[in-house]
Amino acid sequence: MTKKLDIKPPKGKLGILIPGIGAVSTTLIAGVEAARKGIGLPIGSLTQMGRIRLGKRNENRFPLIREFAPLARLEDIEFGGWDLHGMNAYEVACKSRVLDRSLLDSIRTYLESIQPMKAVFDKSFVRNLDGTHVKTGSTKMDLAEQVMEDIENFRKSKGVERVVMLWSGSTEVYSELGEVHQSLEAFEKGLRENDPRISPSMIYAYAALRSSVPYLNGAPNLTVDMPAMLELAEKNRVPIGGKDFKTGQTLMKTIIAPGLRARLLGVEGWFSTNILGNLDGKVLDDPGSFKTKEKSKMSVLDQIFDSEGFPQLYGDIYHKVRINYYPPRGDEKEAWDNIDIVGWMGYKMQIKVNFLCRDSILAAPVALDLALFADLAQRAGFYGIQEWLSFYWKSPQAKPGLKPVHDLFQQLAKLENTLRYMMGEELITNLGLDYYYGDDV
Amino acid sequence: MTKKLDIKPPKGKLGILIPGIGAVSTTLIAGVEAARKGIGLPIGSLTQMGRIRLGKRNENRFPLIREFAPLARLEDIEFGGWDLHGMNAYEVACKSRVLDRSLLDSIRTYLESIQPMKAVFDKSFVRNLDGTHVKTGSTKMDLAEQVMEDIENFRKSKGVERVVMLWSGSTEVYSELGEVHQSLEAFEKGLRENDPRISPSMIYAYAALRSSVPYLNGAPNLTVDMPAMLELAEKNRVPIGGKDFKTGQTLMKTIIAPGLRARLLGVEGWFSTNILGNLDGKVLDDPGSFKTKEKSKMSVLDQIFDSEGFPQLYGDIYHKVRINYYPPRGDEKEAWDNIDIVGWMGYKMQIKVNFLCRDSILAAPVALDLALFADLAQRAGFYGIQEWLSFYWKSPQAKPGLKPVHDLFQQLAKLENTLRYMMGEELITNLGLDYYYGDDV
Amino acid sequence: MTKKLDIKPPKGKLGILIPGIGAVSTTLIAGVEAARKGIGLPIGSLTQMGRIRLGKRNENRFPLIREFAPLARLEDIEFGGWDLHGMNAYEVACKSRVLDRSLLDSIRTYLESIQPMKAVFDKSFVRNLDGTHVKTGSTKMDLAEQVMEDIENFRKSKGVERVVMLWSGSTEVYSELGEVHQSLEAFEKGLRENDPRISPSMIYAYAALRSSVPYLNGAPNLTVDMPAMLELAEKNRVPIGGKDFKTGQTLMKTIIAPGLRARLLGVEGWFSTNILGNLDGKVLDDPGSFKTKEKSKMSVLDQIFDSEGFPQLYGDIYHKVRINYYPPRGDEKEAWDNIDIVGWMGYKMQIKVNFLCRDSILAAPVALDLALFADLAQRAGFYGIQEWLSFYWKSPQAKPGLKPVHDLFQQLAKLENTLRYMMGEELITNLGLDYYYGDDV
Amino acid sequence: MTKKLDIKPPKGKLGILIPGIGAVSTTLIAGVEAARKGIGLPIGSLTQMGRIRLGKRNENRFPLIREFAPLARLEDIEFGGWDLHGMNAYEVACKSRVLDRSLLDSIRTYLESIQPMKAVFDKSFVRNLDGTHVKTGSTKMDLAEQVMEDIENFRKSKGVERVVMLWSGSTEVYSELGEVHQSLEAFEKGLRENDPRISPSMIYAYAALRSSVPYLNGAPNLTVDMPAMLELAEKNRVPIGGKDFKTGQTLMKTIIAPGLRARLLGVEGWFSTNILGNLDGKVLDDPGSFKTKEKSKMSVLDQIFDSEGFPQLYGDIYHKVRINYYPPRGDEKEAWDNIDIVGWMGYKMQIKVNFLCRDSILAAPVALDLALFADLAQRAGFYGIQEWLSFYWKSPQAKPGLKPVHDLFQQLAKLENTLRYMMGEELITNLGLDYYYGDDV
Repeated sequence: MTKKLDIKPPKGKLGILIPGIGAVSTTLIAGVEAARKGIGLPIGSLTQMGRIRLGKRNENRFPLIREFAPLARLEDIEFGGWDLHGMNAYEVACKSRVLDRSLLDSIRTYLESIQPMKAVFDKSFVRNLDGTHVKTGSTKMDLAEQVMEDIENFRKSKGVERVVMLWSGSTEVYSELGEVHQSLEAFEKGLRENDPRISPSMIYAYAALRSSVPYLNGAPNLTVDMPAMLELAEKNRVPIGGKDFKTGQTLMKTIIAPGLRARLLGVEGWFSTNILGNLDGKVLDDPGSFKTKEKSKMSVLDQIFDSEGFPQLYGDIYHKVRINYYPPRGDEKEAWDNIDIVGWMGYKMQIKVNFLCRDSILAAPVALDLALFADLAQRAGFYGIQEWLSFYWKSPQAKPGLKPVHDLFQQLAKLENTLRYMMGEELITNLGLDYYYGDDV
Repeated sequence: MTKKLDIKPPKGKLGILIPGIGAVSTTLIAGVEAARKGIGLPIGSLTQMGRIRLGKRNENRFPLIREFAPLARLEDIEFGGWDLHGMNAYEVACKSRVLDRSLLDSIRTYLESIQPMKAVFDKSFVRNLDGTHVKTGSTKMDLAEQVMEDIENFRKSKGVERVVMLWSGSTEVYSELGEVHQSLEAFEKGLRENDPRISPSMIYAYAALRSSVPYLNGAPNLTVDMPAMLELAEKNRVPIGGKDFKTGQTLMKTIIAPGLRARLLGVEGWFSTNILGNLDGKVLDDPGSFKTKEKSKMSVLDQIFDSEGFPQLYGDIYHKVRINYYPPRGDEKEAWDNIDIVGWMGYKMQIKVNFLCRDSILAAPVALDLALFADLAQRAGFYGIQEWLSFYWKSPQAKPGLKPVHDLFQQLAKLENTLRYMMGEELITNLGLDYYYGDDV
Repeated sequence: MTKKLDIKPPKGKLGILIPGIGAVSTTLIAGVEAARKGIGLPIGSLTQMGRIRLGKRNENRFPLIREFAPLARLEDIEFGGWDLHGMNAYEVACKSRVLDRSLLDSIRTYLESIQPMKAVFDKSFVRNLDGTHVKTGSTKMDLAEQVMEDIENFRKSKGVERVVMLWSGSTEVYSELGEVHQSLEAFEKGLRENDPRISPSMIYAYAALRSSVPYLNGAPNLTVDMPAMLELAEKNRVPIGGKDFKTGQTLMKTIIAPGLRARLLGVEGWFSTNILGNLDGKVLDDPGSFKTKEKSKMSVLDQIFDSEGFPQLYGDIYHKVRINYYPPRGDEKEAWDNIDIVGWMGYKMQIKVNFLCRDSILAAPVALDLALFADLAQRAGFYGIQEWLSFYWKSPQAKPGLKPVHDLFQQLAKLENTLRYMMGEELITNLGLDYYYGDDV
Repeated sequence: MTKKLDIKPPKGKLGILIPGIGAVSTTLIAGVEAARKGIGLPIGSLTQMGRIRLGKRNENRFPLIREFAPLARLEDIEFGGWDLHGMNAYEVACKSRVLDRSLLDSIRTYLESIQPMKAVFDKSFVRNLDGTHVKTGSTKMDLAEQVMEDIENFRKSKGVERVVMLWSGSTEVYSELGEVHQSLEAFEKGLRENDPRISPSMIYAYAALRSSVPYLNGAPNLTVDMPAMLELAEKNRVPIGGKDFKTGQTLMKTIIAPGLRARLLGVEGWFSTNILGNLDGKVLDDPGSFKTKEKSKMSVLDQIFDSEGFPQLYGDIYHKVRINYYPPRGDEKEAWDNIDIVGWMGYKMQIKVNFLCRDSILAAPVALDLALFADLAQRAGFYGIQEWLSFYWKSPQAKPGLKPVHDLFQQLAKLENTLRYMMGEELITNLGLDYYYGDDV
């Protein structure tokens, strides 16, 4: 375990291409630019502000992650994207009302230079939106090829060496996977024949993977969570990641639930409600989109609590998740959770958690870290599902047959030990008996 | 790491001797008896209901901890204790109003058989209590010897093989350590000369360690957190543990703070208030006792957030803890926390946690696990500070020079990997790259 | 204003007939019996525990309401009712898990004597329920006549002088009023011709009013809120009351909203969510029934905040009410409200209210007071809508053309001044300048 | 009751003189100026935005209060004040961080023109503050005379017709009234002899009343709540008002408590905690100042719940109020209340209220209304205690022998009926039987 992997250095520029130039992506772009100019801190980002413990506790080795692992630098990032509105990043950011106008104004020229390309759009997948800044094409394959061309043009015009794609578009209407998603061959046939089960996000992902560009899926859409895409990712040796940025309420769930599970406190019910007033809230007001989101949010507790292993404690949890469009608060989403727990001899207790959060503020550093770590993974020769990045996903993909890990702390251990492994450092087990008994242990 | 330790089997009975027959200890005793009779589940106890993952995820090895490690069985436990009131465990349990009368009545005879011995008491250390059922002695050494005699008599009369002592008495008035606590010699001199800085809990602990009985410190009193006691514990090869059972608000803190720290969300303030109406609340209404408790509760955030490593995120946390005696709720303690956090570009968010808990219900399984694990540790040849049991303590002791670990999830990894180590199983690192890339990793 | 009204004395027994022998009604019946036996206090009831101030503040006249106004006594109440299950009140109360078993057992014989009569039921109005203990009849008029016969039999068998009917049945599916509800003639024709827009509750109400029995409508069903019933009530000079017992969240709303309105704090949004696990919750899981309830719950804020009078403060309130079936909590309903308010110069503030309440515990005293006050009203010669009882209703009926009053404190002033008026006492205006300036004022 | 009082018209300018140019007063001053310029709404102010119902509900007479009663207009207000720092209102407002910088900048010149005069200060009454911009004088009488001179100079230099004084200074250390406060003669002797029990606020109040200037006491200091000041106020026919602006937590208490009392829900405990980080919070960290505040905050529940009239419901309330200095939040004070209530048959329920408020935003409109209403009162010939303004005070003064009214809704009825009385309109009783039964009633 002590041999460092052979990782290609982060030479040249890294392009981050984003389908969906909205609140999250403009908060990301503006924040990266502000951090580059030294007028804002990229709080919440492990790649920018995180440290990693190496060796034993009393060695006091605790470097910044970005000095430990060969990550691309903020200075080397170029942004681009697509959207179905015609607005530049400055206009979108102002409208989104996430960051203060004074901050946006101080980097206005840069933001105005980010002008979205025409989007692939299909109203049957996002019923509460409309748009005119959209591509037309004879077939879905034609649209995919247009996206590939966009990627190439971006590469050339910006002079970037490497690209990652980061989905920040809307939640699409829920649908089960079908025959068309089961193999690359079937999928490509579907693209050529305009199969209605192929959604816009799948067209972007297909274009990315064909272009050897890692695809990171910030929404709960299935997109790369299907055999066809896995096949393509492995064939082209491209990392993929998903699903759904873990922020707000689900983040709190994957913090608190492992705590209750650690102490074996039983759970009878978990009621989660959200109020949010941004575009995301509006889209999720459509039951079709909500169903996709709900799927993503519900699986969390099942895995963490393991009702099979602990039927007396977790065999009958009543778990309910509600999302409510509530305009007065805009992007300042709020969550309220009630948890009914059970202790010693069956006695009941309650926990209420009220999280007054900000959707895009929590999502931006997640998006940044994923882009930088996916780029690192590709340079380290990793491909396909990146389970070590589960830390960032509401509903992390795992190899078929493996249960995904939702516990934030197991996810963190996995991420950190993977970095240590990449760089040839000892993995950390927290055993530490040697501090007390020396080498006898 | 794959050689199983040589652990003595848990033959014969285990005595649990408890200074302080109050709400916590009677909830423990009644619950153990109810579990033995099959009329109650010992929820919250890892030793009774917990499982441990062994090997790789897809091996599906997930035994009960009590079938994996050679723990004493509930059936083999005998309880005894001391208190300054003359009431038996049934009377105390009724008065404490934690468990339902109907449960208590179904095991009344057993509970009535637990009659506390006379206590060592000194009002200058617990100013809000009084009692008559107390020992008298010419010196503190004389009192310690009376306790040792009590232990011996209990061993014989109950026929127990091994004993652990579990402090469930009150929080003593805060005082700094002095000269008398710096060495065993000085301490024994102090006992003989009635040094006023030696508190009742220290007398019990000294008696325990002299009798090779592990001492577990459920209160924030310093007791065994001093050089003199460490010296005695190492000399006699006895495990010790402390301080302060981690329940309620601090438990939630060591769940949520690591989550914020994992995601590098900054923290500007953390305000914690408690309302509780049991005897504990009354004792903590005395500022002297509160100060001891406060010390114990405050250190948690400092260690988890590491303000030195992250001055921009955690360099200026305003942390305030309040405890309020509030009789209407009795043992049903309630905590309210407000946490002011900071994200991307310095934007502020808030988390409120309202925990309607039950003090003794949360403490009882902690006390049980500590007794059983301390007994296991002793049979495995462990002695002195048991850092692997940090999981259970509000303010865990660690070797001088090592920062104690407060993060509940690092504490759990430490506990579980220690059990795996004891039993010769592979330690778990959560790396798991081999699932994806096979033996190449 | 100083002439006492001529009110008939409450001679003989008062019958309370209840369609719907469920959690609320058995909590009412058991509580009344417990109060009669001196083993429980009827807390929450103005008729039993309330006092009323008379005259000037410094006269110190503050009698119990039941000693001031000629109300029926608890001792004189006889209960009866209908339901579609075959269970007696003891069985229902045990199943409802509202009151402790020990309380129920101490009055078991009495409760077992309350055996519901066969109900009028129509599944198309309550889709989540089923029942076999139901009446059959050739027409809806036939069913109404059976109910009238039930009333007569009850009167004779129990020897009661006067009867009131108290609807504690389920919320019926929402439907607009139609032609059939516009006059007594049309309604009676509808009854004879089985008009599908006539619901079971309307059949009960028709039977009551025909029998000169006041009808009190504990659910949000329209029932007596229609021209046909008003016509019948006025013709027969019978008081009616409705709609929907004001408990839990709406009670809190009509407390807090008048406070914000008093201080002219603006409101941008009010989000209300409920979790409840009793039969009521199950019925309200049907969108049809929920719509009826929602109508009842929504009107509250509109009237209190008066958006027309105060367009800058209350012109654009986003008000959302959610009810969630959540079984872990049973009858112990919980409400969480978030209120977004606005102050001086447009600055935003928030109020969160978390009410851990008990549905039937709050409803029982309301039901009792309404029965006793409706009986008083009838004896005082009042008939039709009883606006002075608005205090008790979520959605109080008012004369066409008058806006109903929702402000709890205006409702209380109305109720108290009506009692003073009935008894010939001075109305209270809170002016009180004479304390300071004497008779000059 | 239908004769309009003879009220002098509000001719000329009204001066508002404020001891204490801090967060509250600069928020008031800036807000008034912004409202005058049409760039901000004086939300929360009854005099500016309130309406009053006149006559019967169906008359639809609902004028603005400021068009109904002859109040001074915002345009006619001149501000002045004293403070122990040398900063002008612009500097103070910036430092207070209540209003946005952009709002302050738009009225900067005006705010800079408000320069406080030298203050009367005595550190023994406010131990956590210091200052240099203070008056010196041979005796306290000398200081009082300097203040009277300040008032006169202000009158002349600004050309104001009438003046009111509004205390917005700090909470002084608690002390009981002594002999010196029992008569005007003793008090004036005390002033001349530097009696240590005469605090700075008393010196200001004395100067005001001597100058026929109404004194309004925004802090919980006793100041005008003593026989000596009452004597002077009555002698000079000047209105006085106090104590302590009712904002935040106490405001919510006087909203919710009357609601519980209206419904006769019992109360076992009420725990109130506050976190605040402004200067007020710092001053209240001194136990002496806190005691004064606590007195003011505690009386509320006693009066509303009337434990004597309702010993079974309110005879044993455990009421606890905590104020915690917590800098991260500045002026954005937060309150958390837990209320333990009791219903039908003694069943327990809980209410939690979490109010994220803003101290100065809530106080400013209260201060404005009090100034304008006190001026109206004086012109209407009212003097001494103005009980009709209880609505605005945390601890309203009432005539000796009368219990103060704390119920916000009784206070509102008193305020509104007083205005109706002044203007010769019918008082409102909420009876309203005539809508139903016509003139027979």
